[in-house]
Parts: sequence; C-alpha cells; structure tokens
Amino acid sequence: MKNILSILIGIAVILSCAEPLKAEAGMIPLSELNTLNLQEKGLDIPQKMIFDAGDESLINAIVKVNGCTGSFISDQGLILTNHHCAYKAIQNASTPDMDYLKHGFSASSIEEEIPATGYEVRITLRYKDISDSVLIVVKPDMTPLERSKAIEKRQKVLMKKAEKKHKGKRAEISEMFIGKTYYIFIYEYLKDVRLAYAPPKSIGNFGGEIDNWMWPRHTGDFSILRVYTAPDGSSANYSEDNIPYKPKKILKIKEEEVKSGDFAFILGYPGRTFRNRPAAYLNFTQSVQLPFIKELYEKQIDILQTVSEQSPETALKLASRIKGRSNTEKNYRGKLLGLKRTNLESKWIQTDKMLKKYLADNPSEKNKYGNLLEDLELYYTDRKSDYIQEQLTYRLLSNVILLNIANTLCEYSIEKEKEDIERKSKYMDRNIERTFERLYLGLNDYIYEADREIFADLITRYFEHSSTYPLPELEKFLKGKSDQRSVYKFINKAYKKSKLNDRAMIDKLKNMSREELEKEKDPLLRFALSMQPWLESYDNSKKERKGRLDALMADYVELRKTVSKQNFIPDANSTLRLTYGKIEGYSPADALWAEPITRVRGLLEKDRGQSPFNLPDKIKQAIHSNPDLLNTPVALLYSMDTTGGNSGSPVLDSYGNLIGLNFDRAFEATINDYAWDYKYSRSIGVSISYVLWIIDLYNDNGSYI
Amino acid sequence: MKNILSILIGIAVILSCAEPLKAEAGMIPLSELNTLNLQEKGLDIPQKMIFDAGDESLINAIVKVNGCTGSFISDQGLILTNHHCAYKAIQNASTPDMDYLKHGFSASSIEEEIPATGYEVRITLRYKDISDSVLIVVKPDMTPLERSKAIEKRQKVLMKKAEKKHKGKRAEISEMFIGKTYYIFIYEYLKDVRLAYAPPKSIGNFGGEIDNWMWPRHTGDFSILRVYTAPDGSSANYSEDNIPYKPKKILKIKEEEVKSGDFAFILGYPGRTFRNRPAAYLNFTQSVQLPFIKELYEKQIDILQTVSEQSPETALKLASRIKGRSNTEKNYRGKLLGLKRTNLESKWIQTDKMLKKYLADNPSEKNKYGNLLEDLELYYTDRKSDYIQEQLTYRLLSNVILLNIANTLCEYSIEKEKEDIERKSKYMDRNIERTFERLYLGLNDYIYEADREIFADLITRYFEHSSTYPLPELEKFLKGKSDQRSVYKFINKAYKKSKLNDRAMIDKLKNMSREELEKEKDPLLRFALSMQPWLESYDNSKKERKGRLDALMADYVELRKTVSKQNFIPDANSTLRLTYGKIEGYSPADALWAEPITRVRGLLEKDRGQSPFNLPDKIKQAIHSNPDLLNTPVALLYSMDTTGGNSGSPVLDSYGNLIGLNFDRAFEATINDYAWDYKYSRSIGVSISYVLWIIDLYNDNGSYI
Repeated sequence: MKNILSILIGIAVILSCAEPLKAEAGMIPLSELNTLNLQEKGLDIPQKMIFDAGDESLINAIVKVNGCTGSFISDQGLILTNHHCAYKAIQNASTPDMDYLKHGFSASSIEEEIPATGYEVRITLRYKDISDSVLIVVKPDMTPLERSKAIEKRQKVLMKKAEKKHKGKRAEISEMFIGKTYYIFIYEYLKDVRLAYAPPKSIGNFGGEIDNWMWPRHTGDFSILRVYTAPDGSSANYSEDNIPYKPKKILKIKEEEVKSGDFAFILGYPGRTFRNRPAAYLNFTQSVQLPFIKELYEKQIDILQTVSEQSPETALKLASRIKGRSNTEKNYRGKLLGLKRTNLESKWIQTDKMLKKYLADNPSEKNKYGNLLEDLELYYTDRKSDYIQEQLTYRLLSNVILLNIANTLCEYSIEKEKEDIERKSKYMDRNIERTFERLYLGLNDYIYEADREIFADLITRYFEHSSTYPLPELEKFLKGKSDQRSVYKFINKAYKKSKLNDRAMIDKLKNMSREELEKEKDPLLRFALSMQPWLESYDNSKKERKGRLDALMADYVELRKTVSKQNFIPDANSTLRLTYGKIEGYSPADALWAEPITRVRGLLEKDRGQSPFNLPDKIKQAIHSNPDLLNTPVALLYSMDTTGGNSGSPVLDSYGNLIGLNFDRAFEATINDYAWDYKYSRSIGVSISYVLWIIDLYNDNGSYI
Repeated sequence: MKNILSILIGIAVILSCAEPLKAEAGMIPLSELNTLNLQEKGLDIPQKMIFDAGDESLINAIVKVNGCTGSFISDQGLILTNHHCAYKAIQNASTPDMDYLKHGFSASSIEEEIPATGYEVRITLRYKDISDSVLIVVKPDMTPLERSKAIEKRQKVLMKKAEKKHKGKRAEISEMFIGKTYYIFIYEYLKDVRLAYAPPKSIGNFGGEIDNWMWPRHTGDFSILRVYTAPDGSSANYSEDNIPYKPKKILKIKEEEVKSGDFAFILGYPGRTFRNRPAAYLNFTQSVQLPFIKELYEKQIDILQTVSEQSPETALKLASRIKGRSNTEKNYRGKLLGLKRTNLESKWIQTDKMLKKYLADNPSEKNKYGNLLEDLELYYTDRKSDYIQEQLTYRLLSNVILLNIANTLCEYSIEKEKEDIERKSKYMDRNIERTFERLYLGLNDYIYEADREIFADLITRYFEHSSTYPLPELEKFLKGKSDQRSVYKFINKAYKKSKLNDRAMIDKLKNMSREELEKEKDPLLRFALSMQPWLESYDNSKKERKGRLDALMADYVELRKTVSKQNFIPDANSTLRLTYGKIEGYSPADALWAEPITRVRGLLEKDRGQSPFNLPDKIKQAIHSNPDLLNTPVALLYSMDTTGGNSGSPVLDSYGNLIGLNFDRAFEATINDYAWDYKYSRSIGVSISYVLWIIDLYNDNGSYI
C-alpha cells in the first residue's frame, strides 16, 4: 500500500497519458500541498499561511455548508457563501407575503436572523491516511460482495472508534482512490445555522437558468449565514441561548481592484470528479447515464413548473427543487455537448489501448493484472444493461416524496432490529436523527399534484422498459394494467387513503416494529413494504458492484501510474482541496474572446425588465446618481479547477485576501468533471467589490462585512 | 435648390444632432467622393483610381446584380457575387436529381454555364444632378397629390428623353433627399447572365438562419456569374451566339493575408436606409411596421416550410422564398431588439425637440417652416392608423402568386389604354417586358398549397382588423362569412376553376382589352377585377402621401442642416456608394470581444454533421491532410457602413485589391438602417482566401479566378 503522500503532483496530469495537459490544474488535497511551490506560481505569502497542520492558517476559515463551501468573514461566526447555497434556507423562511427570495433579506439585528433548518456547517479539524487499516480486512479469495461488505464494516468500526476518541466530533472516511486509498477526517459539525443576509433573487440569481453555466455573467450569487454554538462553545441544536461561533480564522477582504492576469487560489470542498476512469466508464456515462437523467429531469422540471402555477405558496415550495434539477439538467447538457465536441472518449480509448499493449508486451505485468481492461469493459457493459431500470425503480422510492417517507419507515423498521454496526449507514445511531430531519424537510415541500405527476411519469417510463426488467410488485399493485388511466386511478386512490403527509403519523410509524408496520393499511406503506425485497437485492448488487469495481480500479490506477510514469491527483470527494490559477479569459469559439471581468455596465445591457433579467430600480438609481459604478467588477473568470461543492468557495489573491466567491463554471467547463483543459476550463465567481456594493445598497444592519 | 455637391460630408453625422458620432461612416455617393481625403485615412493609391469620371477606374468593375452588388474578376465577364445573391439562379437550375443548391455547381466548360433567368446586371455609365429640372414642375399652390403626380410625370419625361439620347441604355432617376434632390443615372443593363460556379449550400450557406446576421461567421457566401453580350458587344437577351462581356476594368486579388487594423473600403449599391427622418417615423416603424411584417413573415415561413415537406421538388421551389423571408424576419427582429437596446427613439425625440425649440426661438424661421414637426407627427399618426389594413389588402394581391398574376393582368388591361407616359411605371413600354418576365418567374415557384395557406392567412388577418377597415369586395366574395371553413371553401373552389397557373392562358389574357377580360369567368380574375377600384384609391393615397411627405421631408432636412450647422449624407437608394473603415472587431456584450477574422478551425468547431452546420467531408479531408489550412481566414468583420444591396460588394484593401466579398452585418448592426454606431456597427464579408481555397477544392474548370 503506497501512501498517498508519495504521489507527486507537480504539473497535474489528468486528461490521459496519451495527451498530457500543459496547463496546471488540479484539486489538490491538503496532504499534497507541501509538494507544491505556490510562491513560484505567484503566491506572495508563505505557503504555511494557507495550511499549517500545527497552527492557525487560512483553511481554518473554510467550512462546508451542506453541499457547498463557505468562509468565515467575521469573528462573530458570519459565513459568506452563495445565494444558491442558501436558497433552500431563504425559501423555507419565506411566505408569499414575506417573500425573501423575491425581496431579499437583511436582519436588522442579530435577533432577526432566521434559523436555516436543515443546514449544517462542517469544519475540518484533522485527517489521517488510514488506507492500511481499512484494507487489512481484504483477503485475496473474497468475492466482490464479501470484499465490499468487509470494507464497509471496517470503516464503520474505525469511525465509531474515532468518534469515541474525539467526543462531540464526527469522523468520516473518504475514499481518495477507489478501492485503494482511504482518509479519515475529524469534523466539527455546527447545527445552529441562521440566515443573516440575502440579496433579492433579481440580484442573487440574475440571469437565472439562461445565464447559468455561462460566461459572461452578472449574477450576485452570495448570501450570509451565521453559525451558533452553545454558550460553552460546543456544537448544539438551535436555541435562543446559543451564541455566535468564534472562528479560529477569518478572511480579509482585498481593497484594490482585481486585474486580469492576477494569481489566485481557491480553498473548498469539490464534490465529485471522474477523471481517473477507463474509457468504458465514459462510454457508459455519455451514452446511458447523462442522457437518461437529463431527459428525466427535463420532464420533472416541466411537471414542477406547471404545478407551480397553482399559487405563490406552491411556487415557493417547489422553487428549490426546480432550481436544483434545472442546474443539473443544464450541466449534463453541457457535458454531453462538450464530450461530443472534444471527442474525449476516443482519447481515453487511446489511453486504454496503450495500457493493453503494455500488458501484451510485458508478460509479468500481464500475469499481475490479468484481463483488467476487458474486465472493466465488461463491468460497464453490465452497468449499461441494468442502469435505467434500477434508476427508475430506485427513484420511485426517492423522487416521490410520500413513497420516500414510506420507504424510509419500512427500511428503518427492518434495520433497527440489527446491531448498530450492521445497519445501513443512514440508520446507524450516529445518523438516524439527520435521516429523519431530512425527511421532515422534504415533507415541508410536499405538494400532492407534483408527487402524483412524478409518480405517474416514473411508472410510465418503467412500463416502457418493463419488457427487459419486470417489477412484479408494481405490476401487482396496478393489477397488471399499464394504461394512463389505471396508473392515475391507482395513485389517486392510494394518496386519498394515505396519511404519510402528516408528521405526527410519521412519528408514530417510526416507533413501530416491522410486524406492527405490516398491519398498517396505508397503501403507500404497503407498496413500500412490498418493495423491500427488491431494495435488498438492489443494495446487495450495489455492494457486489462496488467490490468488483474497487478491485479493478485499484489496479487500473496503479497500472496507469506505472505506464505513464506519472502520478494522479485523486478525484474530488467532498474533502478540502486547493486549486490555483489566474484571473484570465479564454476563447469560447473561433474569433471570440471572453474577458475575465464583467462590470456593472453589463447588468444594464442585460436588463429586460423581466425575470430573470429584471435589474432592481434601486441599482439603476444608484448607477444613475454615480456613473462611476458602471465600472465596478461584477463577476470574475479564472483558470482554476472546480466542480460542484466548490460553490461558495472563497477566491483568494496572492496575499490570501478575499477577492470573490466561486459559484459556477463556463459552459465548456462542465466537462471538467472528466477532464480539465487550460484552453476552456474556466470557473466563475462573484467579485467581492460587487458583494460589498450590494450589501451597502440592501442593508438594514450595516455590520455584515 | 442647393446642389448636392455643396453638401459637405467630412465626418459623417448620422445619428442625431444631439449626439454626433465620433466615428467615420457613411454611404458616400460618387458625387461626394472628391470631398473625402481617403489617403489621409489609409488609402495607398490616388483617389482617382477609385473614381475618375473621365477615365477607367475601380468603379467600372462594380455592377448591380438584381438587388445585389457584384464585381468583375475576369476580362471574360466573370462576376463575383454572393451565394445568396445567385440563390434564385441556382434554385432555378436545380432539380431534385441535379440539386446544385445541395451539391454546388461548377461549369467544366463555358458551354455548361446555365442561364440565370430573371437576372440582369447593371453597370453605371454616368450620372447628373437634375433636381432643378425635376422640381421646376412644382407650384406652391399644388395639393400633395398634384405635387406627387407632377414630379412623377416629370421624371418619366426626363427618363424617356435620356433614353432617346443614350440608345440601348436605361435611364433611372434616384431621389437622393426626399422631395429635394434628384439624380439621373445612365445604366447599361446586360440581360444574358449565366451561372458559372456555386459552392454547395453546406459551404455557401453554412450556418443558415442560425448564423445569419451573426458574428463570428463561417459562411462561404459567394458564387460566380458570367455576363454575355451580342457579338457586337451590345446588350442582348440570351442567345447561343452571345459572347462574354469585356469589362472596362477587373479587380485584382490581394495575395497576402489581411490583418486586423487594415484600411479597407467597399463599393456597392446599398438599398435603403432611413437615417434622416424624424422621431415620429421611428415610432411608426418600431411600433407598427416592423412588428407587423416580422409576425406576418414568421407565419409565412412556417407555411412555406410545412408545404416544403411535400417533396424535394416542392422544397426546391420554395427554398428561395423561405430564405428571403427568413432573412427579413431575423433582420427585423434584430432591429426591434436594437431599437429597444439603444433607445434610439428617445435620442431622435431629443433632436426633434431641439428643432421645435429653435423654431420657437426664431420667429422668422417659424414663419418659414410653420408647424413642420407637428405636421410630420400627424403624417406618421395617419400612417399608423391605416398601415396594417393597407398592407394586408395589398399583400393579398402580391404575396398570393395567382392573385398577383390576376391583378397584373387586370391592371395592365386598364393601363394599356392610356398614353405611355400616363401609365403606372411597370406598365410603360420600357418596363412591360420585365414586368411579365418577373410574373413568369413567380409562376415557376407556384405551389397550390402554399398559395392557399398564405391566402387564407391574409384573409384571417384581414377579418381580425375588418372592424376598422372594411373591404366590401372581399366580403362579397366570401358571402359575408369569415369562419375558417368558409374561407377555405372559397379558396378551394376558386383555385379549382382558375387557369391562371398556365402560362399560355396568361399570354392569352395579357392581350385582352379590359372589356374582354371582364367577360372571363376565372374566379381569381373576377376577384382581382373587383379589387381595381380599391387599388386605384390605394395608388392615389400613396401618391397623396408621397406629395405630403416630400414637402415635409425637404423642409426637415433643410431645417436640421441649419440648426446643426452640419450636413447629411443622403440615405441609401440603390445608387453606387463608397464606404470605408478598418478590418476591426467590437464588443458585442460586456466582457466579450469579437475578433475581426474567423478561421477554418472555426468551421470544425461548428460542424455538427447536420444542416445548417454540415461541413462537407471534402473540406475535412483537405484539412486533415494539411493542418496549415486551419488558419485560413474564412470571414472578415469591418467597421464599414453597409445595408441590403451591398451584398456581394467587393471589400478592397488600401491598394484597391480584392480582399473579400461583403455579405452581411452583425446582429447589433441591423439597426444601421436608422443609425450607424462605431461601437457596434460592423459588416461581414467572406475572405478572398477562403473563396480561392473553395474554388480550388470544388472546381471542374480551373479558370474561375
């Protein structure tokens, strides 16, 4: 087992062995920072000021906020993150009469801050490579399923052990290289998060889905949250007695204007990338996975938008789901276009061909790796054959809110009979509270018509595919009928009878045993119960698959390293990473050059007086009385390597001062998740000058930054 | 009457007095060339080499080709013009089996060239200011209608006189400033025009309507025609005995590559601009005229496209009409967006306010001009109230092919009873042959279903407006009914009986007297006959309007000159003009910069394998075997002042050598027709390097350039 520290990074080689990238990029884990010489690249402070395991450093100011990143900007626990990251909190705080999405929110005193239910802030305390300790349980003669189960259980043991040692903290293990490298992270989770400031949607989401994933951009995508602790400084649930959290480190704001060519870096929690994979994976995702989800979400967005027209209340409840799905849909559209445009698959095929040739030429290696490439191809061929049906069935139990509730209750009734360590992770004692909290949050946004249409759509899709993948449980419930009318009749009847949209009922059912649950008459619960055998076999095949892939991928990365004599940066996995580059433009197409800084004048150019390009009069008036404002930078473009999860990450200058807030990528850069390319991989942030100006304009408090 | 020569131009001031443009632009008439010092701007040859009244100069190589411009590129009469200018000729020469639009055409010998029916080439021989001689007939006490009729008749007299003097040539009078300045031009018209070369549509129309009016551009929009004369060199209709025309001057081709910042100029025949108008005009066109035509054409395009699906033959017949209407529709869309974006109307209103104030402050001037501005406002208020109904009725008699034929026959039967000089222009002896030639060309593209749907759509629209503008003739024919079924019943019945889609029948009817025609039973003819009183009153109100506007506009331009102490370039009117500027980019939006030269690599970027982005394999193969080709310039962008009619104009460098072929404008520049602005007014040409490469690739002859 090689230690991840031995992996040298230097110039990042991500794309493929056949075509190494000239440019520098990479989501570099903390453990690798010391292999970089950032001062050579343009950093004007000692690198230790970014990360110093023993001492206070910039990373102490960086937090994870649900799926996003945020950073401390005051010693009173204020966190700057994106508007789209706080979107759900703003939505939850809003009513049609008091619509903070529309009008923005600015707490005029600390007491006015609104609890951001369902939000948690994670602070990275320490980490350690525990690959050896995890993989010790793997025996050569294990089946994939056995291997998978053994690793999973081992991780649970190690996490529980670590949590015992670090009281009140959370331990999480992250797989850095699939099946090969594991790190344990000790996190502080703060659970009392409140909304302090949000600009109106016409600023925070200016340009909406039209401009999303696009440059040039003029979105003021920022919000401010505050985290609280118990009076003794420990993590606590919401309470009036709680006090603002005192961060170890806060970011300083750059005073001068940023310029094209400036060095910059980002610290944050990028979610997932898929760069160190074989060509067969790319073929699977490009031909099956992305088109399927893109098309499914298009339909679900359509459903949710139609239902939204019912009333302002309904529109508010569905806003966040529409935004999330639209974001993914456009991202996948960009990926599909980009994959076609760059013909990335053929490049990856070349790489894999080279590996095959290497094995053919080296009998001892062939002996070691066997039919590795062919086995990977077979793995993804199998994936392709069952992916869609599996998705459709699984999404029935997750995308349909009441079925998700029913299914969680059923699963829990089964799991709670087991030893804690044997349970599915979400039902372990350490996680059960969160699991149900999320369920209740989902229930908040439940709208019957939306649930019904998504349910019906999934069933219709299922029947289109049923010849290759029958699901007797569903067919039984539908009495063998598959026409539209029967589907709606079944759903209408079931929803009429079901009580699962009632929190008290859920709480009651939650405490029941499996046997008690089975006596319940609720039709959705009965359907979910009947699905449990399917779910168990689904979980098993997932584990079996993971076991199979783990072993293959561990070999694959090793083989690629051997052949290319180069090393890889582990794919993003929601752990803290650094990326660096420059504020710089790019050419999105022949004869077009995109400059890296947009200005306030561009807001006026785009303003159409209607959403999503409805610039508030307040801004127009301010510009009118001070035309110098026209030159204020609004958004920044930079050659850094980011992905989902980097939303809200601070963009820092060569002195580690805050110059912006990362929130998006250019359309061409949606394929970053497979390959980063200096030519077109650009990320987008909102400039801190714009943030400050907007806060100044819309501020009842005056103390935010 | 001031001579137009006294109008100094220098730096063109077009937009408004209130906000003079800093940049240089203008479609400068021949008569004004000597007021320019082009060498100071960057011209490297004596200005006399461009235009020398007494000697051979570049303008001798410039011709008008129907509504476009072309230039001689060989001493054997070869003319280079746009693909979209030769489109109708290529369409007419094509059959589904021999589709030259799709595959391109390259005559492998001079005998293979195909007559371009309906095409004529106009060469400017001489011109003269005859304003005094025209306006001598205007008496102060004339009504607008009398004034209009007197000027029209006077012009006919002068043209006939000039044609008598210049045997075999054509005289045409162009109004340079409305109601104020008139020039007579003596033209040579060559009528034997043949198609010599056209690239496939996938090159000549690469990007289609998606890229039309857009930059960056990659369209190879060029074709080659050849003109012929009788063996004695005189103009003649098509004959096998004809010989290639020997032009006085041919253009030389620039060998080196063009660069950003290079000086360049264009000679051509820009069609119409509307810059020297009052704000009331802009209000009328923006709120009524442009939206009406845009919306009407959207529908007609939709109709023609649906009917096109019938068969490849039908698609071919309708291709040119679809292209023309799509071009206008997108142009108007750009204009409407641009007018809104620039808020041009408010600027023009400022100008007119200033004029009003000037009159209020100067009683003697007030005395002279009276309520000029108010009268202009009134004029356009009247225009707004009757425009749509008038258009709908007039278009019934012109957009519907068989009704157009019927109407022409009816009008002709009336007009031919009059003295030649008293007839409507198109029925005068000097024009009648052309009038019927165009009618037959229209008949070639007649498709029943298209005619029927356009007919029905116009009637439907008419009924939507009928409350304010009844048309008893139509109502009588429809027996008072206006529902869809009755409309279709009427049309179906009429078309079943009508014989107007038969050329022999038209020739027969053409020779009939009014009385004989009235005995005919053809229902379309009967409908057209019933419309003649409406048409006469329409013609009269048009003349009355022109008389009114002529007088007002003559004063308006004079007043603006007086107040601004600056002069104006006359609006474009299809006469020969020069415009100059630079090869240079612009910023289409905040943080975007458009470079002025696209390259072959951009073709690959845009290629999608399907129309309109289906790059031929031949090109891909050529690039594959010679990657240097990737850098070949495809299209050029320049700060010159062009409009429709400039299509096909040669783009010339500082030595007068050919560097490209003008074919379009950037989207923002669609509002050039009202105001030119250095910031965004850019025109687009195809680079001669690309033209040469494509000819080289697709050439069975080898002798084109």
